[in-house]
Amino acid sequence: MKTLSETRLFGGVQGVYSHPSAATGTEMTFGLFLPRAARTGKVPLLWFLSGLTCTHENAMTKAGAQAWAAEHGIAVVFPDTSPRGDGVADDAAFDLGQGAGFYVNATQAPWAGHYRMWDYIATDLTRVLFDGFALDEGRQAITGHSMGGHGALSLAMGLPGRFASVSAFAPIANPTQSDWGRKQFTAYLGADESAWSAHDATLLMRAHGFDGPVLVDQGGADQFLGLLRPEALAEAMVARRQEGIFRMQPGYDHSYFFIATFIRDHIAFHARAMADSGGSGAGS
Amino acid sequence: MKTLSETRLFGGVQGVYSHPSAATGTEMTFGLFLPRAARTGKVPLLWFLSGLTCTHENAMTKAGAQAWAAEHGIAVVFPDTSPRGDGVADDAAFDLGQGAGFYVNATQAPWAGHYRMWDYIATDLTRVLFDGFALDEGRQAITGHSMGGHGALSLAMGLPGRFASVSAFAPIANPTQSDWGRKQFTAYLGADESAWSAHDATLLMRAHGFDGPVLVDQGGADQFLGLLRPEALAEAMVARRQEGIFRMQPGYDHSYFFIATFIRDHIAFHARAMADSGGSGAGS
Repeated sequence: MKTLSETRLFGGVQGVYSHPSAATGTEMTFGLFLPRAARTGKVPLLWFLSGLTCTHENAMTKAGAQAWAAEHGIAVVFPDTSPRGDGVADDAAFDLGQGAGFYVNATQAPWAGHYRMWDYIATDLTRVLFDGFALDEGRQAITGHSMGGHGALSLAMGLPGRFASVSAFAPIANPTQSDWGRKQFTAYLGADESAWSAHDATLLMRAHGFDGPVLVDQGGADQFLGLLRPEALAEAMVARRQEGIFRMQPGYDHSYFFIATFIRDHIAFHARAMADSGGSGAGS
Repeated sequence: MKTLSETRLFGGVQGVYSHPSAATGTEMTFGLFLPRAARTGKVPLLWFLSGLTCTHENAMTKAGAQAWAAEHGIAVVFPDTSPRGDGVADDAAFDLGQGAGFYVNATQAPWAGHYRMWDYIATDLTRVLFDGFALDEGRQAITGHSMGGHGALSLAMGLPGRFASVSAFAPIANPTQSDWGRKQFTAYLGADESAWSAHDATLLMRAHGFDGPVLVDQGGADQFLGLLRPEALAEAMVARRQEGIFRMQPGYDHSYFFIATFIRDHIAFHARAMADSGGSGAGS
């Protein structure tokens, strides 16, 4: 692992690091905010998965998460959204290829070689984080925005027991029924739709839900509501009797201004769930 | 109007009053909590509509609303759920007739004579309250439980501009598709289902929604989830992009213990919406 930068922020440290990933076969970069409490013990970890076109940097600089993470004494990791580099397949479209990994393990050419973002998040980066920093593996939560909200919900429901809580900002909520999903799943996973259902939050919610609290915020003036399909997830959550809260926030669009407005609530939500989850760390 | 009792509570007064209603043609009883602030000026008013089998008394004594209403300086009215008396039609079933008015104006025999609970709430009791007490007619909000949640949502959407906000605890959310609804609407309104749609929160939400914030709490262990159909309302709220919050509360049932646990949030929600709504009273 290489340290690219470390900067004091709200009494803690905002770091940027890179490391080789076996999953993607590339060097990967991530941001990690460690609160002051991490100097003296292990702290809970919140994952923030970003959306289309983003790197590790967008949410780290624009979401405003660190102020509240510092207050609650929790760390936040900001992974990249895809493998990158000259040897990595790409596409001219903004919503396929680099910056658009969709948090799946691609099985189709030309993507299968490097596009293994599910394994990257679930395994590779996980080991880098818990082996390298003062983080409590027993206290993890996950959130994300748009494509990253899809990733957060999919990983949370796909890895039972791993995360104490999951939240999302304007997630791609039903990708198997959206042009944000069908295009990418066809490319990465192939035309057989049976391989897609493990990566659709609405289908996962209908099938088994999440063993913990769920919080979803959606802007009412979001430019992409037709692609996000939040109503499908809301229906599935309530039909499942899923512990959770779905909030429609009128006037907010799809931008980081929307995230910055409500991230405080999400951090408090996850901090409480992680405190309740009984982790093993000194940060408890 | 007759004063049946007035009792000091949280620095204010819990009163019980009765009055003749032109709508129902009967004497009607209601509870009204006035906070201390009503001694010196007009205060905002929250309506609490109760559920099947309830009188004005159940929520008044079991919901725990007054503690938080006092803190926010708002009044709460607890109407009865139907006309009552020897000359009033009734049914042996708990969910039809006395105690089960469903907040509609009945058009069918033998109910049409007295069962006009929509007009009673919307007009008769309204005039009694604003003519007789220090209440700010420009600042009203409405909530309710079960059948009363249905009533609150229906009245809020059916009387645009009247209420600043609406909330509900475990509302009968889609009565035209439930045995809690089809039976009563057939009896009170007749078999022509076109007359029912003005009294179904899900259909009203799909048609035009509510011009203000909506808050719904539903217990995950509610005994009546199949009759309440909360998932239909959740889907409709998000599909409409309705400003609002839908919360599934795991482990809570249909009882007043569920209401008492979350009424604090509802009072704060309505107090804020009424403060934002710019009423005319000295309580502003």
